[in-house]
Amino acid sequence: MKKVLIDCDPGIDDALALALAAGSRDALDLVGVTTVGGNVDLPLTTANALALREFLELGDLPVTPGSAGALLRHTVRAGHIHGESGLGAVVLPAAVRKAAEGHAVDFIIDTLRAAPGEITLVAIGPLTNLALAVRKEPRVVEWARDLVIMGGSYTRGNHNPAAEFNMLADPEAAAIVFEAGWTVTMLGLDVTLTAVVNTAVLERMRPLGRLAELLVAGSQSYKAVTDDSGPAIHDACAVAYTLDPSLFTCVPAVVNVETAGLYTRGMTVTDFDLAGRRPNALVATALDVPRFWDLVIGAYGSLAARLG
Amino acid sequence: MKKVLIDCDPGIDDALALALAAGSRDALDLVGVTTVGGNVDLPLTTANALALREFLELGDLPVTPGSAGALLRHTVRAGHIHGESGLGAVVLPAAVRKAAEGHAVDFIIDTLRAAPGEITLVAIGPLTNLALAVRKEPRVVEWARDLVIMGGSYTRGNHNPAAEFNMLADPEAAAIVFEAGWTVTMLGLDVTLTAVVNTAVLERMRPLGRLAELLVAGSQSYKAVTDDSGPAIHDACAVAYTLDPSLFTCVPAVVNVETAGLYTRGMTVTDFDLAGRRPNALVATALDVPRFWDLVIGAYGSLAARLG
Amino acid sequence: MKKVLIDCDPGIDDALALALAAGSRDALDLVGVTTVGGNVDLPLTTANALALREFLELGDLPVTPGSAGALLRHTVRAGHIHGESGLGAVVLPAAVRKAAEGHAVDFIIDTLRAAPGEITLVAIGPLTNLALAVRKEPRVVEWARDLVIMGGSYTRGNHNPAAEFNMLADPEAAAIVFEAGWTVTMLGLDVTLTAVVNTAVLERMRPLGRLAELLVAGSQSYKAVTDDSGPAIHDACAVAYTLDPSLFTCVPAVVNVETAGLYTRGMTVTDFDLAGRRPNALVATALDVPRFWDLVIGAYGSLAARLG
Amino acid sequence: MKKVLIDCDPGIDDALALALAAGSRDALDLVGVTTVGGNVDLPLTTANALALREFLELGDLPVTPGSAGALLRHTVRAGHIHGESGLGAVVLPAAVRKAAEGHAVDFIIDTLRAAPGEITLVAIGPLTNLALAVRKEPRVVEWARDLVIMGGSYTRGNHNPAAEFNMLADPEAAAIVFEAGWTVTMLGLDVTLTAVVNTAVLERMRPLGRLAELLVAGSQSYKAVTDDSGPAIHDACAVAYTLDPSLFTCVPAVVNVETAGLYTRGMTVTDFDLAGRRPNALVATALDVPRFWDLVIGAYGSLAARLG
Repeated sequence: MKKVLIDCDPGIDDALALALAAGSRDALDLVGVTTVGGNVDLPLTTANALALREFLELGDLPVTPGSAGALLRHTVRAGHIHGESGLGAVVLPAAVRKAAEGHAVDFIIDTLRAAPGEITLVAIGPLTNLALAVRKEPRVVEWARDLVIMGGSYTRGNHNPAAEFNMLADPEAAAIVFEAGWTVTMLGLDVTLTAVVNTAVLERMRPLGRLAELLVAGSQSYKAVTDDSGPAIHDACAVAYTLDPSLFTCVPAVVNVETAGLYTRGMTVTDFDLAGRRPNALVATALDVPRFWDLVIGAYGSLAARLG
Repeated sequence: MKKVLIDCDPGIDDALALALAAGSRDALDLVGVTTVGGNVDLPLTTANALALREFLELGDLPVTPGSAGALLRHTVRAGHIHGESGLGAVVLPAAVRKAAEGHAVDFIIDTLRAAPGEITLVAIGPLTNLALAVRKEPRVVEWARDLVIMGGSYTRGNHNPAAEFNMLADPEAAAIVFEAGWTVTMLGLDVTLTAVVNTAVLERMRPLGRLAELLVAGSQSYKAVTDDSGPAIHDACAVAYTLDPSLFTCVPAVVNVETAGLYTRGMTVTDFDLAGRRPNALVATALDVPRFWDLVIGAYGSLAARLG
Repeated sequence: MKKVLIDCDPGIDDALALALAAGSRDALDLVGVTTVGGNVDLPLTTANALALREFLELGDLPVTPGSAGALLRHTVRAGHIHGESGLGAVVLPAAVRKAAEGHAVDFIIDTLRAAPGEITLVAIGPLTNLALAVRKEPRVVEWARDLVIMGGSYTRGNHNPAAEFNMLADPEAAAIVFEAGWTVTMLGLDVTLTAVVNTAVLERMRPLGRLAELLVAGSQSYKAVTDDSGPAIHDACAVAYTLDPSLFTCVPAVVNVETAGLYTRGMTVTDFDLAGRRPNALVATALDVPRFWDLVIGAYGSLAARLG
Repeated sequence: MKKVLIDCDPGIDDALALALAAGSRDALDLVGVTTVGGNVDLPLTTANALALREFLELGDLPVTPGSAGALLRHTVRAGHIHGESGLGAVVLPAAVRKAAEGHAVDFIIDTLRAAPGEITLVAIGPLTNLALAVRKEPRVVEWARDLVIMGGSYTRGNHNPAAEFNMLADPEAAAIVFEAGWTVTMLGLDVTLTAVVNTAVLERMRPLGRLAELLVAGSQSYKAVTDDSGPAIHDACAVAYTLDPSLFTCVPAVVNVETAGLYTRGMTVTDFDLAGRRPNALVATALDVPRFWDLVIGAYGSLAARLG
């Protein structure tokens, strides 16, 4: 059982990622969810995380809110993608129970301190909380078993030609996290854009009972689903990686996050030519798409069976 | 009685600033000291703060360690000025008692939350702790009664032609603090370089008993004392301001901290021409030097009387 | 007959590009060659251009030397690729005749002024000469019929992860050229890396008599030739484009050259999403490789026949 | 007799500088004037230079137009200071004769080449022409006898808190010029702001016949003249320096021009602490104001006598 702490900004594909975690109880022990402002503002990402906790029947899983905006300068949002609520066409009942007391940064630090070497951090939003945790308690770098992020790209961005959204939303935080001394497993657009919900995938989701409401509406929210194409469920890739790293081809690299460019802030400049340097990242270069969907749909199926 | 929390990196002139606070018990209620890596590394600044607590007989005053290095990128030190120990020629007995549990960032947040509108923050080192506090709990900006910093300059720097040391040591933190929404009272090199320990000042310190060991050795540590010139006790200016703001002429300004230049990182670019913008700083442009020394030497005298 | 002025830094693939122009006398009227410091230093690029003029029997074609180094800051060289001489394993007799008097910048300006709307500029080195020409005589932008460059990339660089060599060698010049008001046809690494000399291509070059000495040695100079792979003859693509634009798929884009990044200087940040902006570039996204080699080998063949 | 070539952007204080040169025929041989876009657009700075040539009876002095705008990026203008015409309240008859053929950059190069070691360059506008000359013909650096600029500051700017106008108007050109290998004599705001036309100075100008029209109207154009204060005639300082360097205290320094900052582009970061580095500048730190005005008013007087 892999212990996993998910830092997220739900967000449609965050929701699908959480559903994947919820459907993988045999392999993955979700020890907490922390939220960050990102796709939409922090109050919404937190409200969405809380609503998901109840919809996905995650019990007492602590949900702890964190940072509202970027470390430095202006905050970027992706409301045009994720809709006003942050969950697009998905409509969930508002949560009954509240968020945990305290701050995400402390939750991350305390959880890692309590179980050094055991917790895998999965970060699928801007890296503000993680950066603050690293700066407040540098030993989190040693305590974490692993850090897997959805973010960045070694080819092109999505929010602009150079930068992927999560990195652009807080370039300085990303720079802190990549320079902290651990090895960041980076699942960037290069692979997540191949995790596409097309018609065939959508058909496999439709029969999943009440869960289908979330999955189907979410999948259709920000891009039309066709035979060949459709929306990419970026964030679910990071959870899938923790479940089965063999789905991904990963290559060691030196990744530097640009913070100073006029046109390139937030770019994850990825050098596969180590030239004797210690790599600070394992960068995913390929995804086994059929096996990915088998894993994901399988997990969704067992979750659906549980939820009824 | 003004309640004051001092964030510092002792540091010779930090020591003289703490002595000034210690000698001003009638006017100033010191509620805590937090430490930050700056002039020297965090373990030393903390050890020095603890040693000073005992030497200055500050009782149970909480001393809480904070951030070890800059938010982003490389850390700059000033060991060439402050010596290996951080206190130059000053030799204090090592502290018997330990630092408080917890982190400076939380101490700052919790102290301000507990007494909104009452606490003046005095920051005389790099602004890392304050920046993290602002990001972790943005309401500190409302809770603080006032923020007074020693740092920056509107003319020239000291560590390089553009930047003052405290700002250069963490430009991103300084940018966060200046952009946080409060009004920063900035006592920069423009005035602190006039607070110079010359022969006449030194002579007034010599008779101060046991305290003279600290003051005289500290004053002579990093620059020769002559009739006309000598070391500036930068940090004491910030404490002096909280005791008597009328010592300083202050002018509203818009201060932007440069984070991107090749030669100007950490510069506090100070625009006195508001052009309709809300000022984010009150910038000191002159110090009444004779009255400053009367205040400082007076406080040192009453402290010396107490210490014996 | 298309009138073409080639600005270059020979350079192995510059040599192959000049050979392509020399072999296309029916379609292309080469009106001049200007040189720039780039792959190697200016004296060598000029000497190589002069040697090529004689080897390729280009007659009185004016060869005019230009800028020695980058507009601003440090100069980058690629001697590790192009060898000490700049032509790798190619050994040409030193030129007998000298370069033209005057400066490349003036040659470019005067040539364009004399035939407005007629001359296609082909730039296959750093863009220093062109940038200076634009600044000295802004009307060159109107006078040029077309500007085709080998340089940049919309995916990844070659000299580092972000930047292609010609752009990195003078990012400010590239920025000036892209912002000058004309439409730059950009043949970047995205397509030039598909113009690869593999075993099959090399076999077609071997029988070309005296010319084969240049082509074969050049092709083998900086990367092993195998069945599947080999060196890319980047610069020849730009000449091929002037001969037959239909070989390339080109897409309008807004290209900004990064000049300020820590890791991204010289990157051609390419936005295909115009969002109402006027495109400043036509960016090649695909090359018809078989037809490209038919064109190139055909031209080499007719040149070989002429040279004997 | 010192041979001087003046590169300028008239501009009110450029006009007063040219008048100073015109009035110093015994000591200064003005060999040419080149113009650059700066205070106002190039057509106006050129028209003003031509009008001044005739008004000041400078005979056949060649006036050659140069660069219209900054090397890179946006052009800054100071029309709010110099008025629509560029000469404020000064009204001169339009010039009868035209500008010289050719470009300022070539005029500078050719003039220096023809008399190596003899010509002092005086640059009182943005440094675009000089930067292009350096890049087109690097030997100008050796050929120039001296380079004196009005521009920059080692304390504060004028156009914004960090940058002086001439440097801000083309930071990259300034960087090229300061890094070119010669020693730049920099007369910055630090001294030029002490060369102030106050009531007493103005009274000395009033009796100067026809010339007074230019001098008095110019002096009153952009700032009120009072007993203590008034407009600074920045550019005349550079001509005064060539006439009598002993008017100025100059200190060797390393000057770097910031090109990358968010708030500091165009700042001349001046380090007087050489730390073993070769200085690239002689920076003026003081002006002998009474002797300056004696020199200037004396020259204006002899010019007035000539003009009638």
